[in-house]
Amino acid sequence: MTDGGPVDLAVVGSVGIDAIETPHAKRDHLLGGSATYACAAASFFARPGLVGVVGDDFGPDRAEALRAFGIDLAGLRTESGSTFFWSGVYEDNMDRRSTRVTELGVFENFRPDLPEAYRDAPFVLLGNMHPQLQLDVLDQIRNPRFVAADTMDLWISTTHRQLMEVLARVDLLTLNETEAQQLTGEHGLVRAAVALLEAGPAYVLVKKGAHGSMLVTRASRFILPAYPVEEVTDPTGAGDTFAGAMMGALAAGGEVSEPALRRAMVAGTVVASFGVQDFSLDALRPLDRARIQGRIDDFRRMLAVD
Amino acid sequence: MTDGGPVDLAVVGSVGIDAIETPHAKRDHLLGGSATYACAAASFFARPGLVGVVGDDFGPDRAEALRAFGIDLAGLRTESGSTFFWSGVYEDNMDRRSTRVTELGVFENFRPDLPEAYRDAPFVLLGNMHPQLQLDVLDQIRNPRFVAADTMDLWISTTHRQLMEVLARVDLLTLNETEAQQLTGEHGLVRAAVALLEAGPAYVLVKKGAHGSMLVTRASRFILPAYPVEEVTDPTGAGDTFAGAMMGALAAGGEVSEPALRRAMVAGTVVASFGVQDFSLDALRPLDRARIQGRIDDFRRMLAVD
Repeated sequence: MTDGGPVDLAVVGSVGIDAIETPHAKRDHLLGGSATYACAAASFFARPGLVGVVGDDFGPDRAEALRAFGIDLAGLRTESGSTFFWSGVYEDNMDRRSTRVTELGVFENFRPDLPEAYRDAPFVLLGNMHPQLQLDVLDQIRNPRFVAADTMDLWISTTHRQLMEVLARVDLLTLNETEAQQLTGEHGLVRAAVALLEAGPAYVLVKKGAHGSMLVTRASRFILPAYPVEEVTDPTGAGDTFAGAMMGALAAGGEVSEPALRRAMVAGTVVASFGVQDFSLDALRPLDRARIQGRIDDFRRMLAVD
Repeated sequence: MTDGGPVDLAVVGSVGIDAIETPHAKRDHLLGGSATYACAAASFFARPGLVGVVGDDFGPDRAEALRAFGIDLAGLRTESGSTFFWSGVYEDNMDRRSTRVTELGVFENFRPDLPEAYRDAPFVLLGNMHPQLQLDVLDQIRNPRFVAADTMDLWISTTHRQLMEVLARVDLLTLNETEAQQLTGEHGLVRAAVALLEAGPAYVLVKKGAHGSMLVTRASRFILPAYPVEEVTDPTGAGDTFAGAMMGALAAGGEVSEPALRRAMVAGTVVASFGVQDFSLDALRPLDRARIQGRIDDFRRMLAVD
């Protein structure tokens, strides 16, 4: 497919190069970034368009690797300078990581500018970035069916007002447990999520890493454990993979409702469980819908109570 | 009901006095012990008989408190000396605790001697104790339908051979993730559980505290998150409450099968979620089947995927 046609899902976020060290391996020059993982994961279900920026060091091979997933790259700009670079180390059993280096490079001056065709995308995923950039995207899109936004602790502490403005304009917010409590000042997780619902979104999705996720609405809660993976090789991007696959599955299903979101979260969990079994996109690359569906069926048997 | 009649479930384990400090409160002279929590939790579903020992300091009020749950106390002996005493401190968000004092008292020389009527109990729960005592109980029971055993790291390192003998003679083993890995030398959780199945039991139930539990059989896995409780007041005994309620629910249902065990785990999770909302048995005391069923229904709605 050529770039610049209609997309089912517009994803805005970082595209980067990662260097990662785990207790078992050390790898660099890895394709990374939130929009990268999210688009690759979404591509198994729907046509994603990526909005981001890379430096002139990114190279055509990496772009080709993204295109091979079926990702539309009309929204990926190349600018003079270095691609966003992140380097991190995972400890022990992969549940803690520390950042060694973050070099924003061309991402520092990133201003999202959506290709015309993306402005009518029915589904939009705003990756974790400065809330002002998320607001800029919200100003560009026309009548979307469902918009999800991710965020992180940095924006909660530095750009609280703008983040609250984002909340008022999206359908779903994803964040982790600590962030939910930090953003609301509430101690209990559900109380924090309910406080966030007051700020606007119909859905708050709390990410709990290896312990799964929780979807909170004004009337309900949905608790989903993670799919049990015996050996996690690299958890980088698992949250973005989850969110991307969820939005892709939602777009593919065509229905926006809580039951549809629950099913989409199952798909997101399963694609993320594949993703962590190798570095970068290496475990996603050989995947197909049949293998994903096989693990979804397996997962649903693991969750079933008569 | 008078003591010494037939029971649905025989529970063998500790009965003790606890002193507990949390970040919010400090309480002592609390009724505690694995068999105490398990019997109280089971009592909402079936008639439990408690096999244990207390000192002459235990007092008739505490025994009456147990009897008020409908627990048969024919198996509870009183000996000259002190009741088992445990004192512990919970840190921060309740996910870590340290033991201050353990005084075994009369529990040190505990030799389980089941009342005649208990020897025909169809369901048996062997609380966490020296594996030789668990074997002694197994020698006394006649043709049980389902026997579950709990264990802990201490027995894994000091009495490995006897513990493996217990495994060969029970239907279900409960333990936590670290213990499963320690007992088998396997790193991955599912691989560890599968190695334990090789040793005898048809079911291995891995307890994950606030992150729920997992049931592993030769052919399947069942993953169940915890019921989300906003404020945990005291997590002491949550695992025993879970196991007791599960065994009680299984006994009440009359069916021994994996689907029945899954449903019983849901009941166990729910009763444990009530239990942690106050100290000792205080949150279980005012409970009834209707309130438990209400939360089970609520929980199942939280888990449902169409």
